[in-house]
Amino acid sequence: MKAIVTVMLKDGVLDPQGEAVRHALGSLGFAGVEGVRQGKVIELDLAETDEAKARAEAEAMCQRLLANTVIESYRVELA
Amino acid sequence: MKAIVTVMLKDGVLDPQGEAVRHALGSLGFAGVEGVRQGKVIELDLAETDEAKARAEAEAMCQRLLANTVIESYRVELA
Repeated sequence: MKAIVTVMLKDGVLDPQGEAVRHALGSLGFAGVEGVRQGKVIELDLAETDEAKARAEAEAMCQRLLANTVIESYRVELA
Repeated sequence: MKAIVTVMLKDGVLDPQGEAVRHALGSLGFAGVEGVRQGKVIELDLAETDEAKARAEAEAMCQRLLANTVIESYRVELA
């Protein structure tokens, strides 16, 4: 089973990477970009086939390794 | 209009970041992780309100800045 984990900085946490992208897009002539936030996406191939267990496992991975829950939020989707 | 761009390494391109995550998950005791690919997600707040134009703009941004199309593929979703 495939789990797709998206990790983003929480609202209110400064995102210098996103700001850099916004400036670069402006320099390239893309007007009308009002905000950019950059995060990461992690695709996990899990041996687990039960949907509930796979979700629980992916969430445990987020808590322990994939996300810094002080400043980041995460979302798990199963596919 | 919000555009969510997901950029992943193409299949067949070595993903050392994903491999590092896979090893770390193994060390933490998560068995059954068969593969990990890591990519980036970029949330764009666009002034454009027309869906087709917003998508075209986001794709142009991917081509010119956000993705290295030699080794990365991208996907644009509008929300």
